[in-house]
Amino acid sequence: MIPRRKHNVSSGSLPAPDDKNSSNDYIISDGGPGEGWRAALRRRFNRKTLHKRLPVTAWLPKYTAEQAIGDLIAGVTVGLTVIPQSLAYSNIAGLPPQHGLYGSFLGCFIYIVLGGCRAVPAGPTAIASLLTWQVAEGVVEKAVLLTLLSGLVELLMGALGLGFLINFVSGPVSSGFTSAVALMIATSQVKDLFAISVTGTTFLQQWISIFKNIHNASLWDPVLGFICIALLLIMRKIGMIQLGEKSENGPSTRQKALTKCMWLLGTCRNAIVVIATGVLGFWFVSSNGESPVRLMGGIPVGVPLPQAPPFSYVRADNTTADFLDMVSELGSGIIVIPLIVLLEDIAICKAFSDGRTIDATQEMIALGVASIGNSFMQAYPGGGSLARSVVANGSGVKTTFNGLYTGLMVILALQFFTQYFEFIPKAALAAVIISAIIFMVEYNVIKPMWRAKKLDLIPGIGTFVLCLTLPLELGILTGVVVNIIFILYHAARPKFSVDMLKTAAGVEYLMITPDRCLMFPSVDYVRRLVTKYAAGRALPVVLECTHIYSADYTAAKSIEHLTADFFARQQPLFFYNVKPSVCSIFEAVAKPEHFVVFYEDEDLDRLLAEDERLQRKPALPDP
Amino acid sequence: MIPRRKHNVSSGSLPAPDDKNSSNDYIISDGGPGEGWRAALRRRFNRKTLHKRLPVTAWLPKYTAEQAIGDLIAGVTVGLTVIPQSLAYSNIAGLPPQHGLYGSFLGCFIYIVLGGCRAVPAGPTAIASLLTWQVAEGVVEKAVLLTLLSGLVELLMGALGLGFLINFVSGPVSSGFTSAVALMIATSQVKDLFAISVTGTTFLQQWISIFKNIHNASLWDPVLGFICIALLLIMRKIGMIQLGEKSENGPSTRQKALTKCMWLLGTCRNAIVVIATGVLGFWFVSSNGESPVRLMGGIPVGVPLPQAPPFSYVRADNTTADFLDMVSELGSGIIVIPLIVLLEDIAICKAFSDGRTIDATQEMIALGVASIGNSFMQAYPGGGSLARSVVANGSGVKTTFNGLYTGLMVILALQFFTQYFEFIPKAALAAVIISAIIFMVEYNVIKPMWRAKKLDLIPGIGTFVLCLTLPLELGILTGVVVNIIFILYHAARPKFSVDMLKTAAGVEYLMITPDRCLMFPSVDYVRRLVTKYAAGRALPVVLECTHIYSADYTAAKSIEHLTADFFARQQPLFFYNVKPSVCSIFEAVAKPEHFVVFYEDEDLDRLLAEDERLQRKPALPDP
Repeated sequence: MIPRRKHNVSSGSLPAPDDKNSSNDYIISDGGPGEGWRAALRRRFNRKTLHKRLPVTAWLPKYTAEQAIGDLIAGVTVGLTVIPQSLAYSNIAGLPPQHGLYGSFLGCFIYIVLGGCRAVPAGPTAIASLLTWQVAEGVVEKAVLLTLLSGLVELLMGALGLGFLINFVSGPVSSGFTSAVALMIATSQVKDLFAISVTGTTFLQQWISIFKNIHNASLWDPVLGFICIALLLIMRKIGMIQLGEKSENGPSTRQKALTKCMWLLGTCRNAIVVIATGVLGFWFVSSNGESPVRLMGGIPVGVPLPQAPPFSYVRADNTTADFLDMVSELGSGIIVIPLIVLLEDIAICKAFSDGRTIDATQEMIALGVASIGNSFMQAYPGGGSLARSVVANGSGVKTTFNGLYTGLMVILALQFFTQYFEFIPKAALAAVIISAIIFMVEYNVIKPMWRAKKLDLIPGIGTFVLCLTLPLELGILTGVVVNIIFILYHAARPKFSVDMLKTAAGVEYLMITPDRCLMFPSVDYVRRLVTKYAAGRALPVVLECTHIYSADYTAAKSIEHLTADFFARQQPLFFYNVKPSVCSIFEAVAKPEHFVVFYEDEDLDRLLAEDERLQRKPALPDP
Repeated sequence: MIPRRKHNVSSGSLPAPDDKNSSNDYIISDGGPGEGWRAALRRRFNRKTLHKRLPVTAWLPKYTAEQAIGDLIAGVTVGLTVIPQSLAYSNIAGLPPQHGLYGSFLGCFIYIVLGGCRAVPAGPTAIASLLTWQVAEGVVEKAVLLTLLSGLVELLMGALGLGFLINFVSGPVSSGFTSAVALMIATSQVKDLFAISVTGTTFLQQWISIFKNIHNASLWDPVLGFICIALLLIMRKIGMIQLGEKSENGPSTRQKALTKCMWLLGTCRNAIVVIATGVLGFWFVSSNGESPVRLMGGIPVGVPLPQAPPFSYVRADNTTADFLDMVSELGSGIIVIPLIVLLEDIAICKAFSDGRTIDATQEMIALGVASIGNSFMQAYPGGGSLARSVVANGSGVKTTFNGLYTGLMVILALQFFTQYFEFIPKAALAAVIISAIIFMVEYNVIKPMWRAKKLDLIPGIGTFVLCLTLPLELGILTGVVVNIIFILYHAARPKFSVDMLKTAAGVEYLMITPDRCLMFPSVDYVRRLVTKYAAGRALPVVLECTHIYSADYTAAKSIEHLTADFFARQQPLFFYNVKPSVCSIFEAVAKPEHFVVFYEDEDLDRLLAEDERLQRKPALPDP
């Protein structure tokens, strides 16, 4: 039984809860459908809204020197991560390497003004790169148009408040998807690691092709690649060492400085490996005229001039695809990529929110505008990336202003260093990706999931397997649908507790308590079980409706049938503690003389006595 | 607040409810997933199961003379309804008229043995006929194969316990669908009523075609048709008159006999009209050699010999379609028709159940076997029809045995009367259908739906409009999906009540009570709202979990974040009255020192005092 709370003192700011329907008294509507238009209008035009929709107006006036230093350090550090990452991710997307860099500066600048989460430097991400490859198939024009359309979809979703769609991707589905993507990205890099050609699109096809072609592998590419992987993993480990943490007095100043240096080594490991192997490549070419390992090749110099995204392109067979052709070729990617990008971005925001609430709508607007801007710089779709956010957070980022330094570094790199990028060995970039991506395989969620709710492993592992065997968007969609079926089954099969109780007057009765709302998928089941349980005993039945917080027309019809059934069997049926909102739904359909509600225990005896009087007069015609 | 029940006396037959988790103590599993295999095995082999799976074994040993008379009268009356109905329904299905009769006897015999509901004479139905026309497009071979496949699907659904799928068709969707079907069937008969040719498949196309061709209408077909409709409606009204009901002493014997005669006139109105117009048609042909109205034409004499359903057929263009071609041509109809047939059948069973529970699984098995049997008699898909059930119930049906007489009458008709059927005017059959089907338009549900829950009108009217404009199965599917979205939105957006309370020691705290389960679509919303509400006030927060009957891994992760957020803000957060099943899920993920549960009000002050001690020692390292 549910204990009653005793010290029920309502304060001035909150309406006094009524004993019967406290749950309806004070409901936080949060801009939901229940909100009036006046309130909505008021909410739309005030200072708070300005701060909400242009977050820069909230923090810039209070910007301090301390914050500026934090942002500078974080911005430069992220810049050192983002440059090798962008080059490598373009390879995942099957695009020329400069397109990754093209997407790493304008978006950062836009995010400063519109973005709500300080630790999100917008740019290419591993998942978006893989999806871009699957959708645009390496065609630059399609990838750039996809950026524009993704941005528009993100903006539209923000405007229409469709952010709640992301809620339907559960933790297990998200983990399964991320893990599968990580394995697929690692697989996609094997060809560069061994310098072989690999065919096939699914995980299995690619590995079959790898095993068939492995005998063609060159010697030096894998040697360099594996050395790089080993170095990267070692530097990563070094970066995590905390000196003097376990000593009594905490770390000494020297230990702190050393820890900081090691952390810097860990953070800049990608840049270090890329620069070192780039120098090696340059030395090979300048001394021998050729390199034993495959190099990246020429990259056009300079920041691209802004230009409208392409609305047509020439196919390999020399036919021209117009805008509609391109849209139909991109297909569901136009919806899936923004959704997945937002999913990742909001997960990051939550991870670095420090307990503040996340404004998903604002994130959609920020990423949408950033994407639209990026499409004018010939970038492919991107968003927030967990790897960069970890670095930014670790570097002491204070505001989104850090994006300025990151963006400037990318512009510098494009303007002055692109001619050196061509000497970077492909195997080194593959090593950078592989040694980062393997930590995205979330095998460590299996244990808590097993302990918490074993059933959740089904959508989790299901999504993982399906994403590896089907196209990614189909895999995650199936996972989401399976998970939704869980919820629907849940809605269709409420649980009951059945208790044999006695009234104050000593009359025995059966109390049946369903544990959740009465909506159409469950009403037949409820009616069947109540009938089944009540029919066996010649006792009055009380349906306890405390937990029924909601009902619909189908439920009301079912209650009508149920009450009529009990009336036909001359078995008394009463409803206890029905919420007023639910009561009005039932009363709209059920015959009032069959549908009897009571709220106080004392009333039950009176009702039972009345009912007995009625039963003794069977000649009484039904009014 | 929820009142506590006081007179909590548990009887011997039920386990004593515990104060904290009574809802988990005694749960009717009803063969659900929670049931052990031993219990399932025991349940499968006993007398009760025999009665359940072969219902004839339950009632035949106790069959009385009184029951036999009731069944005889009902069987013959239904026979008089079913013969004209079958001829007319085949016309809806676009098949030669004898195929309706072919489906009206073997199924009845099978249903006697397997059927669970006495008022369901299996045979052709209006909805199944329309769907058969849409799916099989008038090809007999496809229709007969469809019968076999429908039967197999029904049987499979029975075996796999997929009956719960029907629960996802809500009352509003079902009403919208039925009403749309009724209008479409009425429309399909207009061509016979006016003797014109009509093209188009959707409702709108057909009416445009009707208005274009109406000038070609013959004179006598519509005259006869409308006279028949008028007669049928008048006889229907006469059949409903209850003489002497309002007099003081109830109806006299003479009044009762007259009422019975009028009821018989109403019940047999279809047979009367068909026979009378058939005689008229015979008279026209035998006197003039031709008829001014179009007649039905020849029907092969005799009961068909059992033969296997066709697994191939020759198309109009002389190509042969093999089994797989036929299956792919039937498409989703193979799933949709059994589902719709079961939906109608179970709705009928419920309407005539007299408060007993319906065994949906047994109904699926009975209809499945009946359908498979019918497919060997060259019948097209069918099931229980509301029109026949009303007649059967009104004729005093006692057991499913009445099907024997109905089936025998159909066999007699096939054997001896088919040569007379050819003189029945087509317009008369159209009148029979139209004057019956218009009462299936459920305009009268709109008012109670409006009073009960206005939102339910959206799936209801939506389904109605979509079924008239799209193919039927797409229309109902969209309606179901829209309705499921309601449930998902419901799951994603719980309501909160927020109360400011005082402990016994006078400490103010905020109690937040979500009203339903914590599953993945809602957890972010809950976390966001709790944070938003708690962050504004420097008060301890209590999350009241009485109504949280279920949770999942995603919810547990969210609770972990929530507790960590509160810990970071140094704001105390406690969980009150968490169900043990939910508690174990949260504890598997959340840090135990952050996740504090209490069940008694008295504990809150102690917890608050402890918490204050902890807060005063900020140097305490996080263990």
